[in-house]
Formats: sequence, structure tokens, C-alpha cells
Amino acid sequence: MSLIGVFNKVKKDIKAIEKEISESISTDQRDLYLASTHLLKAGGKRIRPIFVLLSGRFGDYNFENVKKVAASLELIHMATLVHDDVIDDAEKRRGDLTVKAQWDNKVAMYTGDYLLAEALMKITEIEKPEIHQTLSKSIVRMCEGEIDQIRDFNDWNQSFKNYLLRIKRKTALLIAISCKLGALVTDADPKTVRRLYRYGYNVGMAFQIIDDILDFTGTTEQLGKPAGSDLRQGNITLPALYALHYSKEKDLLREIINNNQLEEKIDEVITIIRQSEGIEFSKKIAQQYIQKAKDAALSLQNIPERKMLLEISDFIGERSY
Amino acid sequence: MSLIGVFNKVKKDIKAIEKEISESISTDQRDLYLASTHLLKAGGKRIRPIFVLLSGRFGDYNFENVKKVAASLELIHMATLVHDDVIDDAEKRRGDLTVKAQWDNKVAMYTGDYLLAEALMKITEIEKPEIHQTLSKSIVRMCEGEIDQIRDFNDWNQSFKNYLLRIKRKTALLIAISCKLGALVTDADPKTVRRLYRYGYNVGMAFQIIDDILDFTGTTEQLGKPAGSDLRQGNITLPALYALHYSKEKDLLREIINNNQLEEKIDEVITIIRQSEGIEFSKKIAQQYIQKAKDAALSLQNIPERKMLLEISDFIGERSY
Repeated sequence: MSLIGVFNKVKKDIKAIEKEISESISTDQRDLYLASTHLLKAGGKRIRPIFVLLSGRFGDYNFENVKKVAASLELIHMATLVHDDVIDDAEKRRGDLTVKAQWDNKVAMYTGDYLLAEALMKITEIEKPEIHQTLSKSIVRMCEGEIDQIRDFNDWNQSFKNYLLRIKRKTALLIAISCKLGALVTDADPKTVRRLYRYGYNVGMAFQIIDDILDFTGTTEQLGKPAGSDLRQGNITLPALYALHYSKEKDLLREIINNNQLEEKIDEVITIIRQSEGIEFSKKIAQQYIQKAKDAALSLQNIPERKMLLEISDFIGERSY
Repeated sequence: MSLIGVFNKVKKDIKAIEKEISESISTDQRDLYLASTHLLKAGGKRIRPIFVLLSGRFGDYNFENVKKVAASLELIHMATLVHDDVIDDAEKRRGDLTVKAQWDNKVAMYTGDYLLAEALMKITEIEKPEIHQTLSKSIVRMCEGEIDQIRDFNDWNQSFKNYLLRIKRKTALLIAISCKLGALVTDADPKTVRRLYRYGYNVGMAFQIIDDILDFTGTTEQLGKPAGSDLRQGNITLPALYALHYSKEKDLLREIINNNQLEEKIDEVITIIRQSEGIEFSKKIAQQYIQKAKDAALSLQNIPERKMLLEISDFIGERSY
């Protein structure tokens, strides 16, 4: 089955999940409603709901429960996006104005609060404490990741390990949890739950690293924002870290940073990183995570959804937009 | 038993709960740690933990579980304070600089996110889905209240009902939930759970109305901020609403508002409201809630904690600082 095949197969279920989310955020508060539906309509890949759906097939599948978990996780994803935009001072996301840009930081704050609250209400409809525990622990880690991001802004002395922990908390965790909770809610056996978590974690790490590569190599049209936006915001990612430590241009880069010329020479720095070995190195690391994700998937029961998980990891490994 | 007797009796347990909270927020993120402990040390009355402790006595008391619920609810209270200060643009709280004033809105946002996440992690340690459901529903309502507050800012056409719903969501709900969850976690019977909820709701309504009265009648020293701060921020409370609709000065007030002179004449307006029948009227409404709270308490089993709940409601009804 091709990737398009995967998406076609889950399309109807994703629509039902979107309807569930849409009903959750139907409020008579005008700004809140507009900001929330703005986020929902802006779309995105619904990758978390897809992972919940597919993972649910490795247990005793029950769409009503799977749908609740998927809606809850997508709501949490939306909540983190809108609070992240406040942290990042981001004006645009996927080519659209962010909530904080279109309204303001306050609206973004309470829209995020509200989406998170709705997510909690949705997940607690499922009467399995283990699910609530798993989710709340992850939310703590995700909050820490949000704060790591601020701490690490413009810090060129941060380690590679710092970067990896940050993207784990920022991205990989919620994807891993999507797989794990899809399996937990359908009472999959503990080994399967662990393997799906491992799949999700590795896919999530690869996903974010590739996102960070594309931020340098993509065009404004592909990205919906100018290339190098991460660095302009002070978010130092793997290609930049590698370029600083190991590329042929490392001395030049270090000189620019030490002379506090980063801001004035930001276009030059972005070009240097884009043309550096940092891109190839990051791609290699992403491929290692993809391979680990595939290994985890291959250890699962051989049902059609296993093939789909493999398709998705390949797609994520190869995506160029 | 006097009120001091009540506080002395729960003092040791409150210390243990504060320790539990303090351990929850021990993080190596410096700003986050400082902002969180700033909030914890700023103190407040720990009224929610006290209600959890006392309510727990009407069931099969287990301090370990009661402690977790109490710590979780106080963390949620702290989270709402720090996000409310962003919404209200508040510079001071209880005489101290707020997190948003001492750091900034971003730090306040993520500190609130983090405290809420820790609260969820704490409450989900108790494996009772009904508790998770009750709490998450209340969080949704509290978020809506936060947004009501913004919608109603400077709106002199808002109804009394609007005001009451807003303070329910803003204050009464979390106090009601403190009583309810204290009872639920100790497996009190459903009737007792409902009565304690009713007690908490009515005490909470009275508490906020009296807070809103004191904001007009208190001194800067008592309040830790200038009198009339609510109105200066655009938060129109019961004394102001009553003065506008029914006081002898209503025509003068209406003229000032209609001529858009509120800002320049704010000191005059505050004096008018302070001297109006709005204060007496609000006190009467508060007393009605106190009476309902006492009725609910009196319908409970006659254990020593019932007496303490009655003491607290009397104290809240009479407090003048």
C-alpha cells in the first residue's frame, strides 16, 4: 500500500475525529471560537490521530474510544502550537498568521488553556487511570521542553544532547504517546504497547530533525515562512550545531558569533549552514531514527497496519516539504 | 472551636501538603523554579487544601490520598493566579510583584502551564477516573470564566447573572471541587459528596463577593494594592453594578460612563461606589450565600469537622481584610 493508500484508508475516521474536535471547541465565546477553529482549519497532517488509529488496531479495536484519544491528542497538539507561538514570538505558521499575531498573546494564552482543558475532558471520558497518568506525565515533560527551548535560545554552547532532549520533549513525546495510548485504550499487550511507543518516539525524533533541516533547505513557498526562521528566532538546531563544531566553515561561524555579528550577518550564516556538512549529517541522524522506528514496527504483529506504519516512517524519512 | 483552633488543628497537615507541592515544583529550570516558589511562598490562605482535608473526614480518611488531592488543587489554584495576572495585566498580588511583572508574560504563561501539568500528574496518581473527570470538567469551566472576564471587561451593560456566573467559574467552582474531591477520594457516600459540593460552592460565592466588596472598602495596606483596583482594571463587580442600577447616584454614574469620562473620573467613581448602597446590598447577597453554605454543612454528619466548616463559613462572612 502506498502512502496515499494509507491516508485514503483512514480519511473517513480522520473526518470523524475532526468533527469530535470541532464539537469540543464549539463555544459561544467569539474570539475563542474563531481562534480555535482557525487552528483546527489550519489543519496540519493530523499525524497524531493517524498514529492513534493505526496503533489501536494492534489491540481490541473500538473506534469510539480510539476517537476520543485521537481527538484529545490533537487538541493537546493544537494547545502546544498556540503557546509555542507565544514563546517563539512567531508571526506565521504554515503560511497563516498565528493566533498571537492575529489576536494577541493573551488570546493565544487562554485559547491554549481552553484547548488543553477540553483535551483533558475528552481523555478522562475513558475510565483508564493508566491513560490519564501517561498523558499527564507527558504534559509535564512537554512543558519542560517549552522552557528548555527558551533557555537554549541563542545558546551556541549547548550540547547535541541538549538539542536531542529538547526535540524529544517538543515533538517526539506526543507522537510516541499517540502510539502508546492508541494501544493502551484497546488493551494491547504490554510488549506491543512498548514497541509502539518506541516506534512513535523514533519517528517523532526523525520528524523533528527533518523539520529542522527543511527550515534551512526549503523555499519560502514550501515552508510558509522564510528559510532560516528557526535561527532568526534564536532556535539553534542540529544543522547549525554541527556546522559550528565540525564543518569546514566552523572558524568563520565562530568568529561571527564571538564578534556578536550574528544578527547583522544572519543571511550569510544561514547560507553557510545550508551549504555545510551539517545538512548531510542531520539527514544521516534522521535516517538512523527512521531505521530504529522501522525495527520497532517490524517487531509488531504482522497485520496490515504494520505495513502502514512502515510506509509512514519511510515517507517521513524522505519528505522534502 | 474557634477559627484559630481550626487552623491549629490542620497546621501540620498543611505543612505536609506544602512540602508535597514544593517537591512537585522542584525543577532545575531556574526561572521556573523561582517563579513557582515565589507563588508558593506568597502563600495565601491555603483555603482549598483546608477544605479538602476537612471534607475527607466525612469519608474513609486516608491522609496520603487526601494530601495528593489537596496539593493538586492548590497547584491548580496557583496556575490560575499566574495566568489571571496576565489576563488582568496585574502588577501586584498580596502586596508582592506578580510573576508577569517580575519576569514577563511568557514566563507567567509557561509557569502556569507547568503548574497545571504538575497538578494533573499529582491527581492522576489516584486511580479514580471520576476524580479525573470531575477535575477536568471544572478546568474547562474555569477557562471559560477566565475568558468571560475578558469579555465583560468595561461592559457596564452586563447583567447581575453574568457577574454571578463569572465568579462561580472564577472562584466558587474550585472551592466546591475541593470539598467534593476530598469526599470522593475518601469514598464518602454520594449524598455527602453533593452536600459538601454545595457547601463549597456557596462559601466560594460568598468569598468572592466579599473580596469584591473589600476591593472598594479596604485600605491599600490591607489589600496590598490600591482600593478600587478591580474597577481600574475594568473588572466591574457587584457593588459597582448595583450602584449603577439602583443607587441614589445612578444618574451621575451613568452620565460619567456615557460621556466616556470613567478614566479621568475614576477616583470619584470609586468614592461614589464605596459610599453607595451597592456595598450593603453586596454584603446581604454574600450573607445569603453564607447561610446556604451553613445549611449545607448542617445537613452533614455531626462530626467535629462539621463544626469547623461552620466556623470557616462564619469567618468568611465576617472577614474584613
